[in-house]
Amino acid sequence: MATYGGIDLGGTKIQAAVVDDAFAVIGSARRPTPTSGGPADVAQEMEGALREAARAAGVEPSSLAGVGVGSPGTIDEHGAVTSARNLPDWQGTFPLADTLAKALGCRVAVGNDVQVATDAEFRLGAGREHGSLLGVFWGTGGGGGLILNGKPWTGRGGAGEIGHVVVKIDGARCTCGRRGCMEAYAGRAAMERHVRKLHERKGRETDMFKLMREHGSTRLTSGIWARALEHHDKLAAHTLERAVRALGAGIASVVNVLDVEAVIIGGGLGVRLGHPYAERIAAAMQPHLFADQRPPKVHVAALGDLGGALGAVLLLASPTRSTA
Amino acid sequence: MATYGGIDLGGTKIQAAVVDDAFAVIGSARRPTPTSGGPADVAQEMEGALREAARAAGVEPSSLAGVGVGSPGTIDEHGAVTSARNLPDWQGTFPLADTLAKALGCRVAVGNDVQVATDAEFRLGAGREHGSLLGVFWGTGGGGGLILNGKPWTGRGGAGEIGHVVVKIDGARCTCGRRGCMEAYAGRAAMERHVRKLHERKGRETDMFKLMREHGSTRLTSGIWARALEHHDKLAAHTLERAVRALGAGIASVVNVLDVEAVIIGGGLGVRLGHPYAERIAAAMQPHLFADQRPPKVHVAALGDLGGALGAVLLLASPTRSTA
Repeated sequence: MATYGGIDLGGTKIQAAVVDDAFAVIGSARRPTPTSGGPADVAQEMEGALREAARAAGVEPSSLAGVGVGSPGTIDEHGAVTSARNLPDWQGTFPLADTLAKALGCRVAVGNDVQVATDAEFRLGAGREHGSLLGVFWGTGGGGGLILNGKPWTGRGGAGEIGHVVVKIDGARCTCGRRGCMEAYAGRAAMERHVRKLHERKGRETDMFKLMREHGSTRLTSGIWARALEHHDKLAAHTLERAVRALGAGIASVVNVLDVEAVIIGGGLGVRLGHPYAERIAAAMQPHLFADQRPPKVHVAALGDLGGALGAVLLLASPTRSTA
Repeated sequence: MATYGGIDLGGTKIQAAVVDDAFAVIGSARRPTPTSGGPADVAQEMEGALREAARAAGVEPSSLAGVGVGSPGTIDEHGAVTSARNLPDWQGTFPLADTLAKALGCRVAVGNDVQVATDAEFRLGAGREHGSLLGVFWGTGGGGGLILNGKPWTGRGGAGEIGHVVVKIDGARCTCGRRGCMEAYAGRAAMERHVRKLHERKGRETDMFKLMREHGSTRLTSGIWARALEHHDKLAAHTLERAVRALGAGIASVVNVLDVEAVIIGGGLGVRLGHPYAERIAAAMQPHLFADQRPPKVHVAALGDLGGALGAVLLLASPTRSTA
């Protein structure tokens, strides 16, 4: 029986998993993404996470049939990664596949993080019954992946930037520098900036920064947003409502153009806030849908935090059919 | 040598053409779309226009190898048309293909107007060198067509509604009843409403309605917009600038998600205002493009007003290769 490794390289965390040939997870590990250093330091943490997952699975990394990696940035055919956004000092090109292959002693394939996560939901998760879908990864930013006619659509290599769909001309400044992008309202980073501004400059009350310090964090993570909602924090609720309206308009715009069967909501916030928020997003889409009598299905990503790592394994292999 | 007929059924006009098997136009005719009556009256005008085009080509309609029709509305596999927007009393289903086939004595195929026009630009016009493109038909409304991987993408049958991409949450009321759609700023009907409001209620000066009456028209046609610009009409220029900003944001949003190679600007206004406006739209897209270092090509529809009729012929046949 072959075993495979998968690594999801995110701006906040590195998630590694080891799976059998039916894609059952037999070991996993998670580490924070280094916030300083450079690509070599990030690669070392990725190696460490994969080794930890392999140990939990009781296998040697060198015995794996291969390791798949989902990474931000631009990826060439040799698995070198350029301009990986949100990662430390990663503007240039780093030979990620070669570095990891040498360190782990097995072959390594690298793909786009959002596209592999979308592919995972399509082939293994919430999108299995659909032939076309839009994956929306609601986290620090807002990435998107497309499956059309059962196949990934990547355009000229840069498709899926749903975070930068314009929902308000002359609107809020986005982390990308542009104005009115969906991510300027709905991205975790932009939401944190919004809360900080209203709290510090306008005196709006919130316990979010207190919760952040109590949890030893330096940013408002998805977990802190979820906890603030449980505490009925009004500023958190207001900011999330604003985010949901932007998500509703942006996703509905894409559905009006592509008429996909389903929308899968994943990402740190999407998975953490789960079904109630997927339903709110569906409700916020409704007034903007042209064919509003038959809206697409809206699902939460079924693979949760492991979707990226499982999707990365799909770069190397398809799951064997269960004979049970 | 086989000859074919093509009919483009628009909200304002019916354009008919007769072509040879290399798709050279050997006869054409144009009639206004009836504004009263019902589907049977519209079909009769379509028959008349096609007969006129056939007469100009020196052929009998019954000798045509077939007639293709591009129509708004929902089209079933028998060429029956339901809910054709902007056409008189056409909420129900009308057997358009059967009616025309009986009247003309040849086979008739019906397809979606925007999709056939996009297909025509892809196979015969400005999109020939591209594998993926977005067609934007800027006219009374704002229809869109997609070619991905060399094939039309229609989703669940309702794709391409780029006119209803949201460019401004809580923005202007659209003719569809929703708020903030691209068409609410850029559609000819919405632009006319905007000008009328500013002129009648706010006293803003314009010669557009005078031009309209002089040309015996009851609406601000594409021709009147073009003439008003020549006359340096400030309200016309302001309203078009507002439309261009909406088109720029809406088209850029779609490009950010699909990363197509090219955008083709067609439709009554797109064709009439031509290259200078295609360049303005490209410039208005630029600040919203995520991959702004490699924007898509932006072309004016090369087939002009005949694109719809030629695209309708593509429902029946492909052009033979020239052996010249």
